[in-house]
Amino acid sequence: MTRHIERQIEHLKERILRVGTLVEEAISRSISAVINRDVSLAQRVMASDEAIDRMEVEVEEECLKILALYQPVAADLRFVVAVLKINNDLERMGDLAKNIAKRVAQLEDAGPLDLPPEIRTMATLAEEMVRECLAAVVDGDPVLARRVREQDDAVDAQRQRVRKRLLDGIKAGPDRVEALLRLNSITKHIERIADMATNVAEDVIYMVEGEIVRHRADE
Amino acid sequence: MTRHIERQIEHLKERILRVGTLVEEAISRSISAVINRDVSLAQRVMASDEAIDRMEVEVEEECLKILALYQPVAADLRFVVAVLKINNDLERMGDLAKNIAKRVAQLEDAGPLDLPPEIRTMATLAEEMVRECLAAVVDGDPVLARRVREQDDAVDAQRQRVRKRLLDGIKAGPDRVEALLRLNSITKHIERIADMATNVAEDVIYMVEGEIVRHRADE
Repeated sequence: MTRHIERQIEHLKERILRVGTLVEEAISRSISAVINRDVSLAQRVMASDEAIDRMEVEVEEECLKILALYQPVAADLRFVVAVLKINNDLERMGDLAKNIAKRVAQLEDAGPLDLPPEIRTMATLAEEMVRECLAAVVDGDPVLARRVREQDDAVDAQRQRVRKRLLDGIKAGPDRVEALLRLNSITKHIERIADMATNVAEDVIYMVEGEIVRHRADE
Repeated sequence: MTRHIERQIEHLKERILRVGTLVEEAISRSISAVINRDVSLAQRVMASDEAIDRMEVEVEEECLKILALYQPVAADLRFVVAVLKINNDLERMGDLAKNIAKRVAQLEDAGPLDLPPEIRTMATLAEEMVRECLAAVVDGDPVLARRVREQDDAVDAQRQRVRKRLLDGIKAGPDRVEALLRLNSITKHIERIADMATNVAEDVIYMVEGEIVRHRADE
């Protein structure tokens, strides 16, 4: 029984990592699509979301199966519950990548646009957070998870700068408001990807240390 | 043992309903604060978020306790797993209410603003969806849950109209861009509350029928 559950947990770990890898790829492609205004890449991102959705459902079913058949306790139980939540967050990150890609497609006829340089900076940070939160899940590494958490403020700071630039851009040329608001949506989505990576990191800390760190920053 | 777990499940149901009631109240207050530009009500909403966060953590701990001590199977297991996810979504709805309230506070010095009438319509729809998805959780009612799901498109349609109005407003008076973008954020948050209510409704359908309906609309 014990060895059975170990095998199940290993298998679940591989699967959540596979979902994570797909999501990571969707995010990095959606960002490339923004930077290069590459509509065909954006379309590929949108098409790949279905596979992520399917895998999310499979991972959830696997978690339920493990809970029902192996009735894990202690660390194993915490791992399965953490995976249930992380799985959910990864799928939502995939949706955000899809939304970013949609905006790129909507910008197809928008003519030349000055991309605020901070978009690239915040995207690089957010991608790093996603990569590191996944490594933290697989290695059960709370130190790495805490590092992810700490990066979130830097993303928010960049986001505020982009927002300011876009507002100034709209004031200077209100005819461009439609396109500039789409860029604004893109940066909001990137910010939310970083938020979700932070959620995942907090679930890892909980999983390893049994300590619920969410909402701590507010207190 | 059986009677013990029944009692635990009943207790969990009461608790998730209590979280839901607090969230529902935060949402409806945040909307009132928007409509009446009531900054002091907005501040009360922001302050109430801490209680929601605390209750979310308690509900999650209770779910883990039930899984570890009572090792539920079948319908009970599905209920506990659904509550884990619903709890998460409710907490995020609470955050959205807080974000709406923040925007109201930021609009304090914005002078008179024409509130697009669709904001009220979409808020009413979203509030109804939240109320009904909670009732669906407590009664395990998939018919009601499906009704919630169907309302989401109406919210999205209203959202598109508000967006159009705000874009026109910005073009007509680019000096007002800051305030109009805050209104735009508010409507996005309302839209996301409706999305979360849809997630909860889908979890209820899964809980009752064991069928994962998420992502179906995409297929």
